[in-house]
Amino acid sequence: MNKWYEKTGEQGDVIVSTRIRLARNLMNDPFPCKLQKDGMLKVDKAVKDAVIHGNSAISNQFEYIDMGALSQTEAVSLVERHLVSPEFVSEREGRGLLLMNDESVSIMINEEDHLRIQVMQQGMALEEAYRMADRLDTLLDERLKFAFDDRLGYLTQCPTNLGTGMRASLMLHLPALQDSGAMDRIAGNLSKLGLTIRGIYGEGTQPKGALYQLSNQVTLGLSEEAAISNLRDIALQLVSQERAARESISRHLETQDAIGRSLGILLNARLLNNDEFMKLISNVRLGISMGIIDNISYDQISALMIEAQPATLMKNVGKTMTPPERDKRRAELVKERLS
Amino acid sequence: MNKWYEKTGEQGDVIVSTRIRLARNLMNDPFPCKLQKDGMLKVDKAVKDAVIHGNSAISNQFEYIDMGALSQTEAVSLVERHLVSPEFVSEREGRGLLLMNDESVSIMINEEDHLRIQVMQQGMALEEAYRMADRLDTLLDERLKFAFDDRLGYLTQCPTNLGTGMRASLMLHLPALQDSGAMDRIAGNLSKLGLTIRGIYGEGTQPKGALYQLSNQVTLGLSEEAAISNLRDIALQLVSQERAARESISRHLETQDAIGRSLGILLNARLLNNDEFMKLISNVRLGISMGIIDNISYDQISALMIEAQPATLMKNVGKTMTPPERDKRRAELVKERLS
Repeated sequence: MNKWYEKTGEQGDVIVSTRIRLARNLMNDPFPCKLQKDGMLKVDKAVKDAVIHGNSAISNQFEYIDMGALSQTEAVSLVERHLVSPEFVSEREGRGLLLMNDESVSIMINEEDHLRIQVMQQGMALEEAYRMADRLDTLLDERLKFAFDDRLGYLTQCPTNLGTGMRASLMLHLPALQDSGAMDRIAGNLSKLGLTIRGIYGEGTQPKGALYQLSNQVTLGLSEEAAISNLRDIALQLVSQERAARESISRHLETQDAIGRSLGILLNARLLNNDEFMKLISNVRLGISMGIIDNISYDQISALMIEAQPATLMKNVGKTMTPPERDKRRAELVKERLS
Repeated sequence: MNKWYEKTGEQGDVIVSTRIRLARNLMNDPFPCKLQKDGMLKVDKAVKDAVIHGNSAISNQFEYIDMGALSQTEAVSLVERHLVSPEFVSEREGRGLLLMNDESVSIMINEEDHLRIQVMQQGMALEEAYRMADRLDTLLDERLKFAFDDRLGYLTQCPTNLGTGMRASLMLHLPALQDSGAMDRIAGNLSKLGLTIRGIYGEGTQPKGALYQLSNQVTLGLSEEAAISNLRDIALQLVSQERAARESISRHLETQDAIGRSLGILLNARLLNNDEFMKLISNVRLGISMGIIDNISYDQISALMIEAQPATLMKNVGKTMTPPERDKRRAELVKERLS
């Protein structure tokens, strides 16, 4: 079965993927930070049973993963595949993960909240992703009884999630805006509009791979639909700005040169560290959108960006590797996937 | 007709080409530095007539070029093709060049001496090149009467050429010895053996393209055959050292990586300046000898190294170009030639 990131999405030249995340808590249990081991296991079992043994249409599409039983490599690979948060794997005892076959849906159990329901899709797919998350939410609410206050909405451990408990995010590829030095100004403007933008791989103004996560900040006093609509409108403005910036640099021979060289190095290197890989693959992605590279697809890039991350690389080879061994394997993988 | 450098020679992995140069002067005319315009024209005509109108087997293989009539680009391209010395084109009035069809033989008229007969061959070909030079020398001596002293040998303007008037040179590709930092020591040892080694493109310890010229220094008290034999023996020792150094680094993934990347960049860049081109093409040449690259030949490399030089690039396009225009054309040329 293809993974969700192996399909091409809308506005794929700039919008890599969409993520909807709902924070939910059980009505009758303390927040995870207040739970001892047995309390965590009780919540874990309740959520797991509700999904796996729920006898619903989706039950057999989910796999349960006991986080405490995972190796460090397997756990970090989940982070690299954007299925769980880094915090979730830092302390794994008593935590569980429910994962849909195609990895488009994951439910973290006992992260900051009892449940973090996450739905991911390629490209711009806020409505579809939200519909899926909402369906799951409804299904689980029937069985688990979520903590909900008529005035405040869904109750969460951190007040920043209170209300809808929803964080909608878009992963954006913004190489041209990044190169133009516009990201600081853009980030400042977005925060005034109730949105945040931050680097996915590395903070600051030059995140690796020019990949950014744009998310809604406000969860209180705003419906899910309104938050999503706001995010989409602003994202489409960013898409326009990025496209205009690309249009302007695409005529420069220096741009075409950098893109050509990046592909040439990716196809011919024998050693590739992750930083260099991210820089080069970002250039190749840009080259596809400019029509300079025409035999590689966005979904190949998305899949490779995940497969080439250190822990996922080791997980797929089935052994731990030193950094130089990984650099060698990464170069081999890139050649296999892009040739 | 193929140029001489489009053929593969012996020991071609290390020895790029062989050059024999004979300095000769007419018995009854002052050295060029002592000649006025009319004196130079008289010498020029005499040599030209001896070759072109000499009614010999080789007459119709030569073309005469009036150096004074050349553009700067055409003149510098002759230097890049190793057909004339840089000094020869710096002041072109009253100078002439006789050039064989395949560019393997050139005769500079009124350089430092009245005649500089030069024969070039691919790879290690000292005997063949010397035989050709000697044949020409004999032929021309019959008609021109060269200045010769029974005790000193051929008379030349500079005492360092006195005697045989012969300079035998080998162009060597020594990337592994260069990288190992051994060239300074090697140059010191060679000078004690009556040989000099110097960079072809740039002096110092890191000449561009790792290309070196190894030449005999002694022209007095040593026969041509002895000088050539000495040069060959020492060159073969250098060839062994270079091969051993290559053998040792060829197992390193870093070496294979550098070679793979170099080819990748050459095939995909849209802009290539000459310094970078020389560095990358040197790596590719090394990669051929290591069996890492197998679809490119040494003669392709030799031809490209000449064609990619600035003036030759412009000459072949038929117009003067700015450095960025040349970088663009160089990248196109490299792609055409290596794809």
